[in-house]
Parts: sequence; structure tokens; C-alpha cells
Amino acid sequence: MSSARRRGRPRLGPTVDNRERILTTAREMFSESGFERTTMRAIGRRAGVDPALIHHYFGTKNDLLVAALRPEVDVSTVFAGIAEADTSVGCEFVHRVVDLWESDPQQRARAVALLRIAVTHEEIADRLREFFLGVATGVLGQFVHADQLERRVALVMSQMLGLVLARYVMRVPGIAEASAAELSRWVGPTIDNYLFGEQ
Amino acid sequence: MSSARRRGRPRLGPTVDNRERILTTAREMFSESGFERTTMRAIGRRAGVDPALIHHYFGTKNDLLVAALRPEVDVSTVFAGIAEADTSVGCEFVHRVVDLWESDPQQRARAVALLRIAVTHEEIADRLREFFLGVATGVLGQFVHADQLERRVALVMSQMLGLVLARYVMRVPGIAEASAAELSRWVGPTIDNYLFGEQ
Repeated sequence: MSSARRRGRPRLGPTVDNRERILTTAREMFSESGFERTTMRAIGRRAGVDPALIHHYFGTKNDLLVAALRPEVDVSTVFAGIAEADTSVGCEFVHRVVDLWESDPQQRARAVALLRIAVTHEEIADRLREFFLGVATGVLGQFVHADQLERRVALVMSQMLGLVLARYVMRVPGIAEASAAELSRWVGPTIDNYLFGEQ
Repeated sequence: MSSARRRGRPRLGPTVDNRERILTTAREMFSESGFERTTMRAIGRRAGVDPALIHHYFGTKNDLLVAALRPEVDVSTVFAGIAEADTSVGCEFVHRVVDLWESDPQQRARAVALLRIAVTHEEIADRLREFFLGVATGVLGQFVHADQLERRVALVMSQMLGLVLARYVMRVPGIAEASAAELSRWVGPTIDNYLFGEQ
């Protein structure tokens, strides 16, 4: 790979453009043709870069997928001041998560695509789980004792995963068309219970 | 199709054996090769029946999948007397559902396989949703006012879907290894709240 890397680099533009072009192309092709049928070679061809450069920047195809589908938002900004809201932490958390899903259909489509791939690819499922647990622990860890953190965050994750699945994939009536405020009111107490309830 | 049916029937054994053989073969092949790559023709070949007979018994490949992956248990037996249990309805419901998942690894594998296919096939997702909603409404409808039934059952479904996903697909630590009793204690109050809570 190192010789290919040497070959690839000189004829390429600025690094940041190549990275972005690879990511954009990967997003397009993964959603057009699915994860299985999209090769690194084909992404390289369409992006106009040597496949070895993709490996250099992103690693394996799994790595590229995770990078391509990663949300562009800054999680710490999205959840800033969650404890100071008028409602409970759980209600505020659900409201902000649903607002985030609803604010950018493209990002949501990407998140759903990643979930779809995760359910059939163990390694992607592992990555997605670690990413979600990292976010959830970062946002919610402040409210929970360390020795109960794993379980409580896992329970929160189970409900939020189920909500994505029910709303955007299974399109369950009653949830699919509910507003962020309604979901916050209905599901928020569950999150509060998982974070603060006796167990 | 009708001529193929006529051709197929005489050389076949009793109807019930053929149905079962087709279902068993379909289960094997769907889990070996995936839904996409398994053709009706290939199932027919391995089961030793004319593909037209499969169409006759089961309809489309989607129909066959749903029939093949349908649980063999009698739902009304599994949930009988749920209201008379010592714990709450929610805790008892979660306990029995998890017991069901744990009691038969083959059936669980089938349910997870169906979920995996559903997240990428809209029509299968529709079937699975209607099946789950039917079961959940049958089991839980007795506890809920008709005008709130849709939403309350949808919320229960979102949590139970998330629990399957977190436990068996994403293998989230804290949930993946928990016992039925623990999950019942942690998640049961959520179900109670979705069924009986103010909204």
C-alpha cells in the first residue's frame, strides 16, 4: 500500500478537498448501491483518486462507511445546557434528539442507512454501538453514578434505538407522525426513569 | 401457474409435508444465503417441489419469508393470565417476552433474521409491523382505552424493538447479558407507563 500511496499523492489537490470528495462520493455510492455492492475501487474512480489514498485516509471499507455516515453536528453543542431546561432531563434529551433527526433529512437518512447496515454487519454494529455509547455517556454521564452508568446508558440507548426504528424504519402509526414535543412528553419519563429511577 | 400446479401436484406427498418441507427449506436457505440471494426456484429445487407449488401455497417470496419466520408459539398461550401476575402488567409482559426469546434460540434467530430483512425491505417491514401490532394489541388491548390504543401500543413496540436490537443485534453491555428478571424490573415500569401513565 505504501508504494501506491506514494504513487497517488503527487497528482492530487489539497488534502482536505480529497478527504471531502471521497466522503461525499462514498455517501452517494453507499446510498445508491448499498454497502456490499460498493467497492473502494469504484469510489476511487468516481472521486478521481487512487483507491490506495482512500485506504490511507480512512482505512478499510468499514472505516470509510463509519466516517461517511458520521453526523456532522457537534454533539456537545446540541446537548449543551440540557440540565438547565424547564422540563426534565429525559424530556429535554428526547426533544433535542428528535429535533436533531428532524432538522436535517439528509443526516437522518444517513443515520438510518448506518443502522440498516449495522443490523447485518457485526463490525459496523460494534462501531455504531461504541459511537452511540460514547455520545450517550458524554451527554448523560453527568447525571448518573459511575457504577450504574453502563446499564442506565444502555437502557436509554435501547429506547432511543427503538424510537428510530419505530419512527423511521417501521413507520409505526402513533409514533411516525408524532411531533418532537409529543415524543418528548411520552418518552421523556422513560429516559428519566432509566437515568434516575430506583433499580 | 395453474398448469405448473397441475404438473406439480400428482408427484407430491401429503400436502402438509410439502408445506412443512418448503418452510424448513426456506428457513435454511434464507439464513444461509440471505433473502436477496435466495430464489423461489432454488428453494423448490432443494425441497424437491415445483416452484409453482410454493407460489400456490405461500404467494410471493415476501409472503414465504413471513410465513417461514413466523413464530411457532401460540401467542395467546404465552401471555395468558398476564393481568393476574404478582408483579405489574408491564413487568410480567417484559418477563414473558424475554423468556420467549431465551427459550428457543432457533426461533429467536428467526425473529432477528426477520428484523434484519425488515430494516432493508419496506414491504417486509410493513408485514412485521402489522404482525407485532396485532400481537401487542391482542395482548395489551384489554388494558387500554380504544382511543389511546394505537399510540400506547406503538410506544410499547418502540421499547420492545429497541430491546431486541440492543440485546441481540447491537449486543449493548448491560442489556446483552441481563437476565429476564432484571430486564423485567428495569423495563417493566416503562411498559406500565406507556400502558397506564398520563399522557
